[in-house]
Amino acid sequence: MNSVVDGTCSKGIVPIENSIEGPVGITLDFLANQIDLNIEKEIIIPVSHNLLIDMESNKEGISVTDIKTVYSHSQALAQCQNYLEIHNMKTCFTLSTAAAAKSIKGVREIAAIGTLKAAKLYGLDVIDKNIQDIKNNQTRFIVLSYNKSKITGKDKTSILFSLFEDNPGGLHDILGVFAKDNVNLTKIESRPSKEGLGKYIFFVDFEGHQDSENIADILNIIKTKTSFIKVLGSYPIAKI
Amino acid sequence: MNSVVDGTCSKGIVPIENSIEGPVGITLDFLANQIDLNIEKEIIIPVSHNLLIDMESNKEGISVTDIKTVYSHSQALAQCQNYLEIHNMKTCFTLSTAAAAKSIKGVREIAAIGTLKAAKLYGLDVIDKNIQDIKNNQTRFIVLSYNKSKITGKDKTSILFSLFEDNPGGLHDILGVFAKDNVNLTKIESRPSKEGLGKYIFFVDFEGHQDSENIADILNIIKTKTSFIKVLGSYPIAKI
Repeated sequence: MNSVVDGTCSKGIVPIENSIEGPVGITLDFLANQIDLNIEKEIIIPVSHNLLIDMESNKEGISVTDIKTVYSHSQALAQCQNYLEIHNMKTCFTLSTAAAAKSIKGVREIAAIGTLKAAKLYGLDVIDKNIQDIKNNQTRFIVLSYNKSKITGKDKTSILFSLFEDNPGGLHDILGVFAKDNVNLTKIESRPSKEGLGKYIFFVDFEGHQDSENIADILNIIKTKTSFIKVLGSYPIAKI
Repeated sequence: MNSVVDGTCSKGIVPIENSIEGPVGITLDFLANQIDLNIEKEIIIPVSHNLLIDMESNKEGISVTDIKTVYSHSQALAQCQNYLEIHNMKTCFTLSTAAAAKSIKGVREIAAIGTLKAAKLYGLDVIDKNIQDIKNNQTRFIVLSYNKSKITGKDKTSILFSLFEDNPGGLHDILGVFAKDNVNLTKIESRPSKEGLGKYIFFVDFEGHQDSENIADILNIIKTKTSFIKVLGSYPIAKI
């Protein structure tokens, strides 16, 4: 994300939400702190986790029960928690599932949780497939850039805002602005504002494009009801 | 938590929310799946993370820059992310900060992130104090048991619910029930329902006790507007 901000990369693709583990905190915190980038697109990808080892470096006939330690990204490990507990495997976390796969090349009795693509890329072997606890597992990614997406007619807009202090009905009031116009909310998420317990930033996704008249009106009304608001972008709704 | 359910323990104390990292997913998921336990109390504890090593096992004069690897719970590691990046430290995650502290006894050049109490308990030395990225760091714990707390006059109630499908204004409608009676919401959190992206369970905390007349009335109205609702407990509001 920083590489997009400083111009090293033209686009960045980052996970924002997973159907099992929920929000990706580091992405939401970046969106809250960073001003200029837009969400130009969303991409939804089904997640399948696999147990990978480097068969060449291990003795013949090694099986799942011989694995004592598993490397992977913390979310991947969390999504395979039952499997890891049943097999009594210790865990070690890496920055990505790809980094985990790369790091076990040439290593004995340590496995990585990763994709079939990573196995191929790093010359690893798949010793167990689809080990995630819940099979209906999808991750939503966003594409960040300095571009703005045009209206397609099937769009979604993402905003974040914080409420005025000492305003018990504040969130109800804002949701009412959407309800009045029958605008469908597709996500509502609260994140700690880092200013202490009970103080939140809200992330809301809703159907419609910020350049359409009714959504522009809604955003103008919400501006008067929030202490801070940021439009993260309008972009086509992904097909699942 | 399972030990409280099966009667091995009479109470369980678990973290539910941190002012920096947000919700503790594993606790929320347990509350959503488990039926009988009540929240009988909340406890708010300021968090201070410290870098611990076993000085006896390391060479004299070892300093922070000699540490290559750090063990701790994933939330503690996340809360010290800047510090770990600046010092180029690798991370390995453990089930708790206490387990991290215990595991580095007798180990060289590996540190743990933990409390001053853990350092004392396991005979470790504190080589850096208050290493968390943001200093205003508090964790809210809940006490779970089969007991119900009585009305004190300064209480809070925790519920979780899910909305009927295809009901865009559903959440607004429910928040309106609280707003109408001027009941202050202290938390609203969405969690994936594990049934696919865009399907959520909501966790809401509000002021008042379920045994008081106005809150009982509110809960009865909300029952008619949700596909599923569970009252997790009413308990005294913690002093911060």
